[in-house]
Amino acid sequence: MDVIDKLASIFKDFPGIGERQARRFVYFLMSRTPAYATNLSELVLELKKEVAQCHECFRFFIRKKAVTSSSELCEICADAGTDPATLLVVEKDSDLESVKKSRTYHGKYFILGGLVPIVEKTTKQRIRIEELKKKISREKKSGLEEIILAFSISPQGDHTDTYVREELESLVKSLGIKVSSLGKGLSTGTELEYSDNDTLRNALKNRQ
Amino acid sequence: MDVIDKLASIFKDFPGIGERQARRFVYFLMSRTPAYATNLSELVLELKKEVAQCHECFRFFIRKKAVTSSSELCEICADAGTDPATLLVVEKDSDLESVKKSRTYHGKYFILGGLVPIVEKTTKQRIRIEELKKKISREKKSGLEEIILAFSISPQGDHTDTYVREELESLVKSLGIKVSSLGKGLSTGTELEYSDNDTLRNALKNRQ
Amino acid sequence: MDVIDKLASIFKDFPGIGERQARRFVYFLMSRTPAYATNLSELVLELKKEVAQCHECFRFFIRKKAVTSSSELCEICADAGTDPATLLVVEKDSDLESVKKSRTYHGKYFILGGLVPIVEKTTKQRIRIEELKKKISREKKSGLEEIILAFSISPQGDHTDTYVREELESLVKSLGIKVSSLGKGLSTGTELEYSDNDTLRNALKNRQ
Amino acid sequence: MDVIDKLASIFKDFPGIGERQARRFVYFLMSRTPAYATNLSELVLELKKEVAQCHECFRFFIRKKAVTSSSELCEICADAGTDPATLLVVEKDSDLESVKKSRTYHGKYFILGGLVPIVEKTTKQRIRIEELKKKISREKKSGLEEIILAFSISPQGDHTDTYVREELESLVKSLGIKVSSLGKGLSTGTELEYSDNDTLRNALKNRQ
Repeated sequence: MDVIDKLASIFKDFPGIGERQARRFVYFLMSRTPAYATNLSELVLELKKEVAQCHECFRFFIRKKAVTSSSELCEICADAGTDPATLLVVEKDSDLESVKKSRTYHGKYFILGGLVPIVEKTTKQRIRIEELKKKISREKKSGLEEIILAFSISPQGDHTDTYVREELESLVKSLGIKVSSLGKGLSTGTELEYSDNDTLRNALKNRQ
Repeated sequence: MDVIDKLASIFKDFPGIGERQARRFVYFLMSRTPAYATNLSELVLELKKEVAQCHECFRFFIRKKAVTSSSELCEICADAGTDPATLLVVEKDSDLESVKKSRTYHGKYFILGGLVPIVEKTTKQRIRIEELKKKISREKKSGLEEIILAFSISPQGDHTDTYVREELESLVKSLGIKVSSLGKGLSTGTELEYSDNDTLRNALKNRQ
Repeated sequence: MDVIDKLASIFKDFPGIGERQARRFVYFLMSRTPAYATNLSELVLELKKEVAQCHECFRFFIRKKAVTSSSELCEICADAGTDPATLLVVEKDSDLESVKKSRTYHGKYFILGGLVPIVEKTTKQRIRIEELKKKISREKKSGLEEIILAFSISPQGDHTDTYVREELESLVKSLGIKVSSLGKGLSTGTELEYSDNDTLRNALKNRQ
Repeated sequence: MDVIDKLASIFKDFPGIGERQARRFVYFLMSRTPAYATNLSELVLELKKEVAQCHECFRFFIRKKAVTSSSELCEICADAGTDPATLLVVEKDSDLESVKKSRTYHGKYFILGGLVPIVEKTTKQRIRIEELKKKISREKKSGLEEIILAFSISPQGDHTDTYVREELESLVKSLGIKVSSLGKGLSTGTELEYSDNDTLRNALKNRQ
């Protein structure tokens, strides 16, 4: 394997990139100036140096330069203005970024780190269910009232919703915290005529 | 215009059919046997003869052979088992067929006959708002408790929802009938990461 | 099966139409005026009455009103201006219409009536190979010099090309008629980078 | 601009990547291990160090480790087995890789470095037309007999073909070298019915 193959095999890991496009990326880099490659190489190292994982929500974020490394809190968890009453549990970083960008939610977040496969033995090693329980216990003291489960509407998302609710059941009962899930129904652009049965059922059940 | 052009121009009216496919339909018919064409021609006439518009829900339906023509009621409106407590108001026949097929709703229907364009002067001539009011007054006596507005999630669908609610306001108030709309939120297959802001807002608002 | 099912099953035969769209066609017809249905029904019968199959090229065409039924010749075969030196052999009517519309060819046509499946025992019953041989013998007297095989570039199209060449071999040799096939190479919009190997090979071989 | 924005803006330059996917790439990198980032960073530098541009065909390639830096020849130009009789002129590196991979061509290559825009004053600064002329003069001594122009079938590709032919006209005449272009016609998967007029015209003209 020469350097072209090695780089192509890394780019193939990138989200949405196949073998062919991975190789085009390498040829693209070959045709750039040395300065371009150096810049990319250095930015990747800089990203690695500046990235930290928030020890509260498990989100990856860029450390503010001036801040000492001891405080590994992302800017949402560190923000005193964040509403402590709700905790939105999502699968992954890009879900959090998407909700944050929509400016429709102002509470806290927790990144579960994955969905629970429907047939799966070793679940606990893959998602942060124990970390979530500890987070809930801590947040209770800060005023947490409701946990909002926000997973994709798919068999695996539904399965994860059920799994997390069961795992949290006794804890939230003892703490008096509510658990909810994102509302299901018609989404923007949905035409009634082409809706699937589950969506119609949810839209009817959740009418208001 | 010869017969090919004339037929192509009719097929071009069919839902989802463009100029090119319309002509392919004609060439397809030309290559079929005479029996095939005769069969199609006769079925179209038969459809025309057997189709009726239900004078209760305004749906088009096929008359049962034995039934005298005086009773122009579709099988849903004629069915004593249909739940009289809810009336689902949809835009068009294919919306009704889709909900019916999903077996998620067991009440009555009303076909409005269109959506209300956002800039529109002559709305009343285009949708059956007066017929809807009369229908509601009649159905009240049969036990109607709730009107469910079921329009597509689009600017025009939302506008129609608002328009119909305003038009019905005093009537439903005086009759003590509730008006609801289909629930909005995440629909099947929606990924959180790619949801638009409106859908996220609705999914959060309608969490449960 | 009621009339809706029967009509839907006919529309499902139409090129490119599936079950769902076939039913939408029927609902569309149900919502049209009786005059619309009558018009469609009559045009289908008129098409059937006016359509004829050219006994020279086997194309379906619309008979000119004034012409007596004895002369079953399409307007291309009947046109004294059609170049008798070339005969373009195509699979089906829509191929002929497409070439005719392009105004790039001015000779005679022959519709083979299908392609030859790669594994097939009863080929002769399905394509007009015997009719083609008779046509060639007749056309020789009118000045035929070249037969152009014009099939799609696919395994079945290539197989048909080979099959027809073999079948015609001794006849065209004895008559001194040339057999050619449409040129292969890069087609409009082809980008070199995304070309398949066969196309590149043909483009290189047929460079000029 | 923080490091996330800076990296995203570099990834946005990558072929086929938009703003959204560029940011996903950055979030993807943030979630990888430090070793992953270091590996990527180092491979990009290694690529930059090992890449060279062939001074014969202008292709970018990876230098063989053992070779001294003085010999900047790619492995095709350095290969004594490469057929010296033909020179394939392509727009860009990925076109060359595609033809090479197809194993349908065994001669030499020349990368022009771009296409000639239809309205363009300063062409010579953008494509390597002078370098091509020098290359042809050199290759004549090695046995060059034919230059094959291999551009995409598009208005700009056709324009470049014409432009290069005009520029080379007197030179190739004096040297007795032939200029050809890739063959045009039906390409793999083309259906006759859906072919555009230019493709049909070329397929008829280039029949054989």
